[in-house]
Amino acid sequence: MSDSSKIAAILNPGRMLADGIPYPDYADAGRRLEAGEDWFEIWMNKSRSYEQLGDAALERGDTVSGGEWLWHASLSAHYAQFMWFHDPGRREAGQRAKSELYLRAAPHLLPAAERADIPFEDTSIPGYLRRPVDADGGEVPCVVLIGGLESTKEESYLFEAMCLRRGLATFAFDGPGQGELFFDRKLQPDFERYVSAVVDHLEAAEGIDAARLGVLGRSLGGYYAVRAAACEPRLRACVAWGACFDMTDFDAMPPHTRDGFAYVTGIQDRDEARAYLHEAIDLADVAGNVRCPTYVLHGRHDVIFSMEQVDKLREHVTSAPLEIVVEADGDHCCHNMGPVVRPRMADWIARAIAEVPAAL
Amino acid sequence: MSDSSKIAAILNPGRMLADGIPYPDYADAGRRLEAGEDWFEIWMNKSRSYEQLGDAALERGDTVSGGEWLWHASLSAHYAQFMWFHDPGRREAGQRAKSELYLRAAPHLLPAAERADIPFEDTSIPGYLRRPVDADGGEVPCVVLIGGLESTKEESYLFEAMCLRRGLATFAFDGPGQGELFFDRKLQPDFERYVSAVVDHLEAAEGIDAARLGVLGRSLGGYYAVRAAACEPRLRACVAWGACFDMTDFDAMPPHTRDGFAYVTGIQDRDEARAYLHEAIDLADVAGNVRCPTYVLHGRHDVIFSMEQVDKLREHVTSAPLEIVVEADGDHCCHNMGPVVRPRMADWIARAIAEVPAAL
Repeated sequence: MSDSSKIAAILNPGRMLADGIPYPDYADAGRRLEAGEDWFEIWMNKSRSYEQLGDAALERGDTVSGGEWLWHASLSAHYAQFMWFHDPGRREAGQRAKSELYLRAAPHLLPAAERADIPFEDTSIPGYLRRPVDADGGEVPCVVLIGGLESTKEESYLFEAMCLRRGLATFAFDGPGQGELFFDRKLQPDFERYVSAVVDHLEAAEGIDAARLGVLGRSLGGYYAVRAAACEPRLRACVAWGACFDMTDFDAMPPHTRDGFAYVTGIQDRDEARAYLHEAIDLADVAGNVRCPTYVLHGRHDVIFSMEQVDKLREHVTSAPLEIVVEADGDHCCHNMGPVVRPRMADWIARAIAEVPAAL
Repeated sequence: MSDSSKIAAILNPGRMLADGIPYPDYADAGRRLEAGEDWFEIWMNKSRSYEQLGDAALERGDTVSGGEWLWHASLSAHYAQFMWFHDPGRREAGQRAKSELYLRAAPHLLPAAERADIPFEDTSIPGYLRRPVDADGGEVPCVVLIGGLESTKEESYLFEAMCLRRGLATFAFDGPGQGELFFDRKLQPDFERYVSAVVDHLEAAEGIDAARLGVLGRSLGGYYAVRAAACEPRLRACVAWGACFDMTDFDAMPPHTRDGFAYVTGIQDRDEARAYLHEAIDLADVAGNVRCPTYVLHGRHDVIFSMEQVDKLREHVTSAPLEIVVEADGDHCCHNMGPVVRPRMADWIARAIAEVPAAL
């Protein structure tokens, strides 16, 4: 089995299409894969052709198309590399193309994505702030969006649109082990410190109502979100888009997912990486400290995180209003139910933030 | 071969997904179809489940989700009936459900779709006006959107969004033979009179710059658009999303498409319907009168309208700036290239309308 076929076997089209991959591209990639073409090249070629479209549009002054085609280029580069953990050179090339293309798309998106590089120790946290178009000068609440094992700040564009339509600003960023920051910081046990730096940044940002901040994390980001909510009282609502409490499921995960986890630790030895992950990813020490309303979405057919993760969250998150939704037909993050579960999460967090008492 | 399998054989997933059918629904319908379920029921069930989600959301006050789920319900009902010409009872039930659901979605869409029923002889022309959100009080240009053989005003929601993002208002309506108006008016040779009534309506509408109106029609709507541009000088730009000049391709069309054409004439006898279509659909008498900039998009692999239609447009539309784009890999309306061709058409018409000289 080639690397490409291994990747094909674990693809989740529900995820890819809900995040913005156009169906014709998905279908074409499938045909090319069957014909023996290389997955990475298929998608990097698509990325390059969208990039050309985007650049030409910008030259003509067609900024809406320019921004969106560059975003398509970025998303194509994402899927070129997203599971390419066995080939760090290609993974880095794809990752850097993805970030660079989105950076160029950012000012042309509607609404624009405002780039931030938040100083943090000897590095900086890269992120994008987007504000609802109809904010007419007033302060708006904001939801902090966290990616997962290989999903990054560039991937939440369409989910951001859902939040923006509901009057929420969004701030998507890469934490340690993710996207751009991976090159400076591998996966770390203290992701919440990075979230707090983001909260500091949002407190200082003009037009953002810092008393109404929420956090939403996807897949492994669901773990980070709950951890941040436990440690950062300025977060007033939390969504775990997929339940993850600790790494007890690790040995049962699909091989590519295990490879990914090992990769983002930066530790070469597989046993060492495994031991580190067990230690670094565990909510037991903080889960009892979550105070804000928290929503957990989980799919019963998730092959990465088992129902045990849901049970542990229910057991440990005991000091917060906790709503757990388990979808009997849902896969990982319920990507196969995107049109139902995604708007519902956006509604939930918009409402939870709106209901924060006005004065403390 | 069952009716359902015949429909499955001619499905165009590029179209369905680009117009808003979520991938999980498309994939699920495919599985059910293989298991022997009935196409109409599969989609009407989806429609009902989105309707329930939408109604519940509206009851909770979640108007964004409410509007979008009702739109999903409408679109699902559309695909239940779209090729069900052999069973007028079901077709009418699906069609009426589609219109009714969209009507309920309309006020909650962002931006809202404002319903209009434009008096016309002894009936009225149903349509929806949508205005760009950032219009800040000034007058905005508007593009009139025309559906095709079975596509209607409810189907252009995502394409409207493309126009709206580019600062254009949109007015989508059903003409004779289409959608809601079909029950009052079958296909007629004078579609342009209905477009002129729409233009009258837009001239009177507040906030619309009536000196900057364009028209864009899809599939058979491409024929109507060029016809309207030829006869209605207040239209200042025209897009034919698919070339159709006359019915010379009729006998070579897929059987379901021929059934559809016969159906919308309301004529039972197939030979009579065929003769009527040849007479009613022909641009030869007016094509030379088109004066406004006109853009034609066509796919070389279109199995409904052949390249001859493109050649005839080139031959006859000689008094207007004419841009013809033929995509070598494109299917009918280039639905298999949606993410490339759709933004390009929106850019083209936005620019053509913007370039209309300020004073005449």
